[in-house]
Amino acid sequence: MDRIDVVPLPQVVLRRPGAFLLDGEVALVATGMAVPAAWLLHDLLRPGTGYALRILSTDDGVTRPVVLKLDLSRVAHPEGYLLDVQPDRVDLVAATVQGLGWAVQTFRQLLPSRTLRSAPVAAGPIEVGCVSVADEPRFPWRGLMLDVARHFMRKDFLLRMVDLAALHRLNVLHLHLNDDQGWRLEVPSWPRLTEAGCWRPETATGPTVALIGHDGTPHGGFYRIDDLREIVGYAAGRGLTVVPEMGIPGHTQAALSAYPELGTTSPHPVRTRWGHSPHVLAPCPEALEFIIDVLDVVTDVFPSPFVHIGGDECPRDEWRASGYARKRAAELGLPSVDSLQSWFLRAAITHLASRQRRAVGWDQVMEDGGVPGDTVVMCWRDWVPNLAAMTMAAGHDVVQCPADATYLDHYQSDHPGEPVAFPKTTTLTHTAGYDPVPPELMAVQGAGVVLGTQAHLWTEHMSNPRQVEYMAFPRLAAVAEAAWTGMDRRREHPLDARLLGYLSRLDALGVEYRPPTGPLPWQEGGSGARCRD
Amino acid sequence: MDRIDVVPLPQVVLRRPGAFLLDGEVALVATGMAVPAAWLLHDLLRPGTGYALRILSTDDGVTRPVVLKLDLSRVAHPEGYLLDVQPDRVDLVAATVQGLGWAVQTFRQLLPSRTLRSAPVAAGPIEVGCVSVADEPRFPWRGLMLDVARHFMRKDFLLRMVDLAALHRLNVLHLHLNDDQGWRLEVPSWPRLTEAGCWRPETATGPTVALIGHDGTPHGGFYRIDDLREIVGYAAGRGLTVVPEMGIPGHTQAALSAYPELGTTSPHPVRTRWGHSPHVLAPCPEALEFIIDVLDVVTDVFPSPFVHIGGDECPRDEWRASGYARKRAAELGLPSVDSLQSWFLRAAITHLASRQRRAVGWDQVMEDGGVPGDTVVMCWRDWVPNLAAMTMAAGHDVVQCPADATYLDHYQSDHPGEPVAFPKTTTLTHTAGYDPVPPELMAVQGAGVVLGTQAHLWTEHMSNPRQVEYMAFPRLAAVAEAAWTGMDRRREHPLDARLLGYLSRLDALGVEYRPPTGPLPWQEGGSGARCRD
Repeated sequence: MDRIDVVPLPQVVLRRPGAFLLDGEVALVATGMAVPAAWLLHDLLRPGTGYALRILSTDDGVTRPVVLKLDLSRVAHPEGYLLDVQPDRVDLVAATVQGLGWAVQTFRQLLPSRTLRSAPVAAGPIEVGCVSVADEPRFPWRGLMLDVARHFMRKDFLLRMVDLAALHRLNVLHLHLNDDQGWRLEVPSWPRLTEAGCWRPETATGPTVALIGHDGTPHGGFYRIDDLREIVGYAAGRGLTVVPEMGIPGHTQAALSAYPELGTTSPHPVRTRWGHSPHVLAPCPEALEFIIDVLDVVTDVFPSPFVHIGGDECPRDEWRASGYARKRAAELGLPSVDSLQSWFLRAAITHLASRQRRAVGWDQVMEDGGVPGDTVVMCWRDWVPNLAAMTMAAGHDVVQCPADATYLDHYQSDHPGEPVAFPKTTTLTHTAGYDPVPPELMAVQGAGVVLGTQAHLWTEHMSNPRQVEYMAFPRLAAVAEAAWTGMDRRREHPLDARLLGYLSRLDALGVEYRPPTGPLPWQEGGSGARCRD
Repeated sequence: MDRIDVVPLPQVVLRRPGAFLLDGEVALVATGMAVPAAWLLHDLLRPGTGYALRILSTDDGVTRPVVLKLDLSRVAHPEGYLLDVQPDRVDLVAATVQGLGWAVQTFRQLLPSRTLRSAPVAAGPIEVGCVSVADEPRFPWRGLMLDVARHFMRKDFLLRMVDLAALHRLNVLHLHLNDDQGWRLEVPSWPRLTEAGCWRPETATGPTVALIGHDGTPHGGFYRIDDLREIVGYAAGRGLTVVPEMGIPGHTQAALSAYPELGTTSPHPVRTRWGHSPHVLAPCPEALEFIIDVLDVVTDVFPSPFVHIGGDECPRDEWRASGYARKRAAELGLPSVDSLQSWFLRAAITHLASRQRRAVGWDQVMEDGGVPGDTVVMCWRDWVPNLAAMTMAAGHDVVQCPADATYLDHYQSDHPGEPVAFPKTTTLTHTAGYDPVPPELMAVQGAGVVLGTQAHLWTEHMSNPRQVEYMAFPRLAAVAEAAWTGMDRRREHPLDARLLGYLSRLDALGVEYRPPTGPLPWQEGGSGARCRD
């Protein structure tokens, strides 16, 4: 028997007879770099158990220790781990503190769901069935993208999502921090970004295509630099890197609303409808200065080795219509204004390189001149044949983001009560079967590699945490499993069979997931302001 | 100089020269019943500082200890405390672990605001200016009422509000768990309460009186028993009692929607408009059985010595129109159907007494027969002359809840951008001047006493945490101060002068309070679905 309901499913699981008894007398044993992992285990166990577990530096004379140890001779993979639950001790072994963190997250899932709560709801010791787990992730990039531009999400919810992502052994939180509909990053030298650019007077209602009207209600918010430092530090403590995305040169209408001089045409307010704006950065010195200033704040605040610069969906119409832009393109020796996109991106990428950061972009960065080969490309357009293969053949490392499997703003089913969503359907079953490196990609693989995959929460139709959680869960589990667990193993042990145990953990955590039977009555979309395409 | 910006202002504060240096090497020293308070201090300091402070049982040989001690010879009041910050040690002394908890909350407010964050945003040790605080609360009941019936609020937000209430040294979280617009408590023997009674298909938009329309969007949710046990346990760990309110016999349309047989007339859906319903419990045996079953769950889940049974705003029209109700009233020997209200309440109160619980009710419980003298009465109708005095003269202990000072669903100002609210205005300044026991009440005080006061967050016009925080803060600080601090001391040191330091703490905690200058653009009410009366 090698089935446990841990999500994502570890690579090797062997059930053993017997059980370990966890109670307040148990000691956590760790030294050196393993100590922070012992504290993580402590901090994660304490609320739901009430235990004040001791942290000791030796297991000499300790009965029933939980030992956390770094041992490169036993675990080679930097995020791999061994987890051994025996009647008289528990061993967590990894090569890094991050690997130990994943062992901690797996260990939590072996305990009763109630231990995930913020306070104990039952007394008595906890039996943990004996088990040997040997595990490592399939991919080094296992992400969750949250769009906080279309709808601002509060810091406390971001911290909650970090906790939930960590439980799924995801290691990247990708924050989409600006878009036509809002700017969320405090940039001290450009203050109007977070005075004018961070809110809109109202928001479109109805599906993306068929606009019904506007709700007449202001929406906005932004993160102060210390808020972001806090999120970054909180995430780091749980093994996650926060990858910031500041998208250019398109998707910048909110920035243009604050600083019209950065654009080609007259002032435009923060966009209140969905879809992407025709209004983009002008190829002027001020826009370059703006980009540099923003990226300097970004690289100061986010230690992430990767910085996302967008690069998708930049309409060229304004540039084509602008004498200034045409003249500028000619001066720069570009074949046409179309290549201004690449020119913008290369300027940003060069600056990031000078800060020892690697750029990431959506797959349209490949167009009209492209980007340097070390740029990581997120391949999202599932309808473009051989997209990932071509991108890798061009030398780029790829994060697989095919919309049909990883865009969790799609409908979850054809249930008539599903709340309004982007007008495509991505079922849990579909995502559970998603392979980030399908056989045909293996065959054509070029110079670049698949770094991993991630889930995407575009929030046009999710205005608050309740709606985000409904769309994210349980599909996030399927993406996390695609990122962590090998394909053969996933086929052998479908997520379906582990779903109930998983959902009981979400219940304990108060996550408002979509039940397998369809939306709860109050999760339905209703007949009012919003409806389906 | 005895001014510090701690909110609520402690009774005695003496600034001393010098400072204590708090860093990761500091040890917390506690024994016996003081140990949980040391853990509370540890758990509250750890996220924002990253410190893993040791908890020791003796300060022998410890440099710079923080000592938490129970000592009845030094502190008499069960919630009082002494807090002494000296260059070489910090002493927290109280008579109870709850009192130590309030010392911990005051100590947190002496530290830089950033230490309240969920992760460190700056390195280095922390200087805490030396100070002696001797403090105790003016009242034993210092509450925050949150209406989770009109709009369901998620468990994670309730836990956050517990944390925020504790920071304000409030000791009661009063949860308004049912109303015409929704039922939130899982009652296993009455399952339809949380299948049918816990959601509504849409919600009225616009002010209380001038209905504009309905939003067409379903709304709902409920708490499982373990969710409530978790909230109760979490609150207890921070010194708060959760007082549940299950209102009868009016404000019960959501229950009637699930079980129409409990009512007098034909089935009614969960109410989608504000205001109170004419549909109330019928004086039938099933309704009594229902009340008993619900109260048995309530007393099982909530250890609170107080249970609130509502008793306000129960229209008698259905009873007057019902031959059954008139007959029943006659059989029961009541002077008229009006007294059925008192009959219902007395049945509940008797049952609660058999479970060693004391009932609490809104001030209308005094009408038409009244309630036993040990029932605590919440006096909220500020327009009824001498209400509290009359209530106390009738022998009741009183919680002062005058709407004009403590109902935080009122407008905060006459600013034209204020979001829609109950059509009265309660400014911060007004609440800051509020005295729960004004001189005229001192003069006429009868057999009962004023137990204290509390803030009220009725949520008709607050559909999510962002809106609740806007209405709650900073006015909650003024109510908390009215509950804790003596009137002379408040007059001498107005809240105004301490507001900036207080708001910087709310910033660190990500609380979206109303700024003193008025709503931020995205906090304004907008021109759409909702507007002022």
